[in-house]
Amino acid sequence: MLNSKALCYTAHMSQIVAIDFGGTNIRVAYFPTPEPPPTKHSKLPTCASEGPQAVITRIIEAIRAILPSARENLRIGVGSPGPVNPYQGVILKAVNLPGWVNIPIRELIQEQFGCHVAVGNDANVAALGEWRFGAGKGTSNLIYLTISTGIGGGVIMDGQLLLGAQGLGTELGHMTVEPEGPICSCGQLGHLEAVAAGPALARQATALIETGRPSILAKKLDEKRHLTGKDVGEAAQEGDALAGEIIERAGEIIGRHMADLAHAFNPEVFVLGGGVSQLGPLLFEPVERSLRAHVMNPAYVEDLRVVPAALGDDAGLIGAMVLASQ
Amino acid sequence: MLNSKALCYTAHMSQIVAIDFGGTNIRVAYFPTPEPPPTKHSKLPTCASEGPQAVITRIIEAIRAILPSARENLRIGVGSPGPVNPYQGVILKAVNLPGWVNIPIRELIQEQFGCHVAVGNDANVAALGEWRFGAGKGTSNLIYLTISTGIGGGVIMDGQLLLGAQGLGTELGHMTVEPEGPICSCGQLGHLEAVAAGPALARQATALIETGRPSILAKKLDEKRHLTGKDVGEAAQEGDALAGEIIERAGEIIGRHMADLAHAFNPEVFVLGGGVSQLGPLLFEPVERSLRAHVMNPAYVEDLRVVPAALGDDAGLIGAMVLASQ
Repeated sequence: MLNSKALCYTAHMSQIVAIDFGGTNIRVAYFPTPEPPPTKHSKLPTCASEGPQAVITRIIEAIRAILPSARENLRIGVGSPGPVNPYQGVILKAVNLPGWVNIPIRELIQEQFGCHVAVGNDANVAALGEWRFGAGKGTSNLIYLTISTGIGGGVIMDGQLLLGAQGLGTELGHMTVEPEGPICSCGQLGHLEAVAAGPALARQATALIETGRPSILAKKLDEKRHLTGKDVGEAAQEGDALAGEIIERAGEIIGRHMADLAHAFNPEVFVLGGGVSQLGPLLFEPVERSLRAHVMNPAYVEDLRVVPAALGDDAGLIGAMVLASQ
Repeated sequence: MLNSKALCYTAHMSQIVAIDFGGTNIRVAYFPTPEPPPTKHSKLPTCASEGPQAVITRIIEAIRAILPSARENLRIGVGSPGPVNPYQGVILKAVNLPGWVNIPIRELIQEQFGCHVAVGNDANVAALGEWRFGAGKGTSNLIYLTISTGIGGGVIMDGQLLLGAQGLGTELGHMTVEPEGPICSCGQLGHLEAVAAGPALARQATALIETGRPSILAKKLDEKRHLTGKDVGEAAQEGDALAGEIIERAGEIIGRHMADLAHAFNPEVFVLGGGVSQLGPLLFEPVERSLRAHVMNPAYVEDLRVVPAALGDDAGLIGAMVLASQ
């Protein structure tokens, strides 16, 4: 079990290798003690098209390359795309990684290094990182949302990471916000991810431009034949009205969903991470406005803070270190 | 903090008075030890229109009447309409109880009896009851939904009642299922409660009958000028097509929301209580079908059970006893 209370007595005696991997990169870091910063780190391409066995071999080689010669109470923590069963250390299915179904990654790493290995869903692990060493430091009830190509979530309640019966919680981006809405990466309709993640913003911009609405994105669409969420965010920051509307609407929907989550979890802080959340006030203002407008009682927002993530791309690595240390 | 682990060492030494009250009735029970059944109980009308002071006086008199002459390690547990701040023992606002705003009920009872008093939201307290002694016995990750005039929720995760920062979780009936949907009792739009609780079913039946659709409810509507959720449920059980459609649609929406909650919490069991849930297969079949159709990965439902509540109207009283014993 992931238990924050266990941290204190392992903190001074473990050295930790943390791994954070996804569809694009594998990142590995070595922490001589369970706290940031790491003393060594490396980054290599995932080469996901080569299949799970090749990627796992690359992960294992990257761990070996970063390990110190003197190993003492080594622990390894892995943040993986999900869903992941953290109790069994099995990746049920890794989004953006073709062929990754029921991969017993804990066992595969454990048989190489013979040490404690902990595996967690990437968003849950990043939530742990932001909670212990980032924007949520010092809190006990936190909701972390990462908004980029997908939308992931992690929840700390009463100082514990929420996992659920098989450890498949807390997929907060896969909850319905528009019942008749667009199809989600998971196959269901109208999830938050399908409406407010980067690809959704790009799709919305493309559709509006195709109706003849003026936008500085029209030229980019003509040239690249394809927009990204980043393109929409940049256009909004340059003052493009169409892009601004899309970001504002996404913020309103994210804020309304956060009100629903406030009713469900009553957190003291929402930490927003991921590329989309780097838009600053353009996103945070409609989010906060919508959140406050949609709560059923002002008590839910009186002491509630909405803050940007503090660890950036390192949240996953630092969180994997926290996970391993527990 | 509500902590299940504390139960073991208080279980053999406390005598408990449990109170469960709402807009209609006050129920009080005496448990000589922290387990059902109670050896004494009473029920009296709330007379909510008389205002908070009169109702609290009635509650205190009812406690006094049921107390044994020999008091030893007395504890009192109260299940109250919410939102409630259980840490402070304050009712922030009691639905259906006019004038109940920021009532420090724990303090008011404590100054009369000078003993430990614990206060909780009625749905959270009922969830505790069903978890310890009802349909969720033996589980560690449970979601309780009570579907009647309103829709309340309670969540046990890893053997702990989820409360959140101010103890205002887990209002699972106040989450958006139809963004443009009907207005909810809380003032927001399209919450599950506004779409699938008893009054919503009655409103939907009335609207369809007024368009000229045939139904055995038409005569009742003519006579009473007003339908209830119970009327719709009874008509559905008698085979009325219109009523059946309404219950089926409610079941589908409840099931879809349960899929969202499965993604968020990954429970091992859903316990459904309240009047609407007594409809049996008429409700449970569309609920189960919709739940299974809307999960993002089969792993969420492989070991998931959906069961009717087992304690009936006693869930609140037994839960208030569990709450006090902790």
